[in-house]
Amino acid sequence: MARQPTIEFWYEFASTYSYLAAMRIEAAAGEAGVAVRWRPFLLGPIFAAQGWTTSPFNMFPAKGRNMWRDLEREAARHGLPPVTRPDPFPQNSLSATRAAILGQGEDWLVPFSQAVYRASFAEGRSIAEPASVIAILDSLGLDGTQLLKAASAEANKTRLRVAGEEARSRGIYGAPSFLTEDGELFWGNDRLEQALAWAAGERPGTLR
Amino acid sequence: MARQPTIEFWYEFASTYSYLAAMRIEAAAGEAGVAVRWRPFLLGPIFAAQGWTTSPFNMFPAKGRNMWRDLEREAARHGLPPVTRPDPFPQNSLSATRAAILGQGEDWLVPFSQAVYRASFAEGRSIAEPASVIAILDSLGLDGTQLLKAASAEANKTRLRVAGEEARSRGIYGAPSFLTEDGELFWGNDRLEQALAWAAGERPGTLR
Repeated sequence: MARQPTIEFWYEFASTYSYLAAMRIEAAAGEAGVAVRWRPFLLGPIFAAQGWTTSPFNMFPAKGRNMWRDLEREAARHGLPPVTRPDPFPQNSLSATRAAILGQGEDWLVPFSQAVYRASFAEGRSIAEPASVIAILDSLGLDGTQLLKAASAEANKTRLRVAGEEARSRGIYGAPSFLTEDGELFWGNDRLEQALAWAAGERPGTLR
Repeated sequence: MARQPTIEFWYEFASTYSYLAAMRIEAAAGEAGVAVRWRPFLLGPIFAAQGWTTSPFNMFPAKGRNMWRDLEREAARHGLPPVTRPDPFPQNSLSATRAAILGQGEDWLVPFSQAVYRASFAEGRSIAEPASVIAILDSLGLDGTQLLKAASAEANKTRLRVAGEEARSRGIYGAPSFLTEDGELFWGNDRLEQALAWAAGERPGTLR
């Protein structure tokens, strides 16, 4: 039996288009016969390295205004609930990302990640405080307090930092990003289908 | 008979994703039953107003590297020839854009615009010098020298400047952009289908 191809899904909890990708990647990947490895990371350090202190959607107001409208349209197109706009935007995603890093390889990583996105972009809840993250973990039948304590331990903080360095070294500059096993990088929710097709072995027509 | 809806296609000759949109918009719009109004403009002044002196694809190397790869993939997917990379990038598009502004309402605007894009992104030719633009106009059976002279007259330069002000005042911050008659703004070649659907009266499922 042929080995199932895998795609890496690099996502940031504060990222609007990561939200769209997170809510639809499992179904789309299943249809394409591709497995998904969820790779949480922080975009902040990558933005900071290029001199940005906030989201480009805040730095450039016209771009930001259209992004929010586009997010509404795209959420509707994908059958997601009306978008709630995190305040402040972007949300501080450190606690949630630490928890997700701890959850790598665990069954709860995907439902936890989707619950964080849903809280932030569909339920109008803050995800910034440790208490919010604990509540989401608790709602999944986990021991949120205990997990967030483990997530804040030095070893896990190092794993998060290493993930960020890996992202940058592999050419990632935004979220969501998709990486195939042969290192092909696709950026943005709009490229999910192309990334899955690539992972499944398809190549666009005349590509050299 | 119902009036045919119209979409405005705002494009910049130096813009890589405007190239993709320009080569496929007429067919896609025809299929959607939508007419296209081609609106050439210069992105430079809009970038300059937010403090940029070059393309973000030059300012942020990782983003630029992936854009070129993505452009290759997307060109292949749309059945376009292998991409040639303009050098320098971005090309100075002033002369070509002046000519296109002069061509608004003329039959030659679309073939001229597509020929400029083809020269730049599929034939490895410069489009920056007036002589290049004259040659493209000539190749369409027009009097390139005469047209570029008219395009450089004060009245036409004013039309170009006014188009740029209109773009900014209507929320445009990048290219390609699509504007529907009810003012809905879609940014990027990836939104062409959604913009055409909107123009044709469709609305995504649950949009408020």
